[in-house]
Amino acid sequence: MLTYIYIIAITAEAMSGALAAGRRNMDMFGVSLIAFITALGGGTVRDMLLGNYPVTWTQHSAYIYLTISAGLFTMVVARYMHHLHKIFLVLDAMGLIAFTVIGCNVALKLEYSTPVVIMAGITTGIFGGILRDILCNQTPMVLHKELYASVSLLVAVLYLSLRKFGVDHDLNLLASFTVGLSLRLAAIRWSWSLPVFSYSPERWHN
Amino acid sequence: MLTYIYIIAITAEAMSGALAAGRRNMDMFGVSLIAFITALGGGTVRDMLLGNYPVTWTQHSAYIYLTISAGLFTMVVARYMHHLHKIFLVLDAMGLIAFTVIGCNVALKLEYSTPVVIMAGITTGIFGGILRDILCNQTPMVLHKELYASVSLLVAVLYLSLRKFGVDHDLNLLASFTVGLSLRLAAIRWSWSLPVFSYSPERWHN
Amino acid sequence: MLTYIYIIAITAEAMSGALAAGRRNMDMFGVSLIAFITALGGGTVRDMLLGNYPVTWTQHSAYIYLTISAGLFTMVVARYMHHLHKIFLVLDAMGLIAFTVIGCNVALKLEYSTPVVIMAGITTGIFGGILRDILCNQTPMVLHKELYASVSLLVAVLYLSLRKFGVDHDLNLLASFTVGLSLRLAAIRWSWSLPVFSYSPERWHN
Repeated sequence: MLTYIYIIAITAEAMSGALAAGRRNMDMFGVSLIAFITALGGGTVRDMLLGNYPVTWTQHSAYIYLTISAGLFTMVVARYMHHLHKIFLVLDAMGLIAFTVIGCNVALKLEYSTPVVIMAGITTGIFGGILRDILCNQTPMVLHKELYASVSLLVAVLYLSLRKFGVDHDLNLLASFTVGLSLRLAAIRWSWSLPVFSYSPERWHN
Repeated sequence: MLTYIYIIAITAEAMSGALAAGRRNMDMFGVSLIAFITALGGGTVRDMLLGNYPVTWTQHSAYIYLTISAGLFTMVVARYMHHLHKIFLVLDAMGLIAFTVIGCNVALKLEYSTPVVIMAGITTGIFGGILRDILCNQTPMVLHKELYASVSLLVAVLYLSLRKFGVDHDLNLLASFTVGLSLRLAAIRWSWSLPVFSYSPERWHN
Repeated sequence: MLTYIYIIAITAEAMSGALAAGRRNMDMFGVSLIAFITALGGGTVRDMLLGNYPVTWTQHSAYIYLTISAGLFTMVVARYMHHLHKIFLVLDAMGLIAFTVIGCNVALKLEYSTPVVIMAGITTGIFGGILRDILCNQTPMVLHKELYASVSLLVAVLYLSLRKFGVDHDLNLLASFTVGLSLRLAAIRWSWSLPVFSYSPERWHN
């Protein structure tokens, strides 16, 4: 079940990466690479941080083909994608939650402490998007738009709490997805966001 | 002693990260993440380069809480921080030196060669700031302002030389901090900087 | 033989890094660091992805000295370098091919699957340039200019195919360099490029 959602998720993330590459007029290779990194970069950074070798995607070539294909496919269908805007947002939100839960589980298996498990979940959830934005030379969107990274944090905390209280894993997943998806979609619908910190110094050293 | 300075240092670095995030109008989550990465990113990159697993902060949850708290606290006190400008510069300089010495020691323990030990010291000293600037979409400041990264290099070389000559460790630390701090503060005071390389090609391929 | 080309390659890459740093008015330290990262960053990212510790350059201090010296030397000779423009392009292309083949071999030795071996080759070939461009705050050039990253992909596929068919290694290297170099130079000469994906949404979420 989580695997199916994961496959949908990396496809959606790859497509979001391809669209970002298209906004920078990248060529087919650039589109493929950004799609791949957006989809699998979060998990890669997590694995490298946790010392979880071999890195997951190196053992699943299918993920390489899938994300690159999704990226190239996006070049063809991009002009029609605004019709799919809403579906896309739902898939992206499901991806965020699936990534977060999977990231937590990888760190749990390696017996890291709870705060590190949460960091691993968030890293898996948001770092693909951060790498996409760095490669496309823009400030990472997830750090200043409506609730996104916070949904990842909340899902990680909820999932770990229910797990600690011995809630059945399927039920836990259902709860995490329901809460996370509702929050994310509500945040988009009503433009909910965290307080923003705006700082403009007269002059500041370093 | 070095541990106390380290704790002051990651706090100061976290605050500098939060201020940079504020300049990009990031939300609370963005501020926390940039604070965390600015403070602990240098050591993380060092550990990943050296294969020093588990990465240091994953074994010290307190550092996670401390840096995130320092980031959020900065949002509250930012408007008063220009009064603390000079103290902040001193703390930042002490952090740079503490990070450098700690980075050298990690590589020494893993028995890397001297040039790698120096690279590990510099990486720990400056990479948090480089990651902060990349995430805030600006050219890394440490690579073109008054002596900063060079202080890290000098401290690494001095520390390793005194160590080789069998100087007592406490005395070595004292010397490294005295020389490093004096140089850094003098560089700020009199705007000392390294020669700058300015290159503007008519047209250059790749 | 491959080692000689590798040494020429990291020198050429270090010089391209130094020139990019010069365009951003970096100081001597920044120039040295960008030179080092441009030359050795691709292999470093590869080693970290594959868990290939210790990272290659940490075992060869000579590469550290060589790339930093090449960076500093570039500051001195930059004004004359447009005369060497064409030689430089050839060296850069040879470097791309050498990096790719070396990257494939590292992953082959670790017994990764073919798609991962190809990714390792490409990563070694192009990631130094990507890191250079990120540090210099610009969209990675290799992702949208005339055939460059694609040459790396093609060389990786060709090299692995000939290897699979049992072709003698020296002959394989000769073929890979001949084809790769011809393609890259033809691409520069006649501005060959991959199809570009340009996408400008009215409004797109995430």
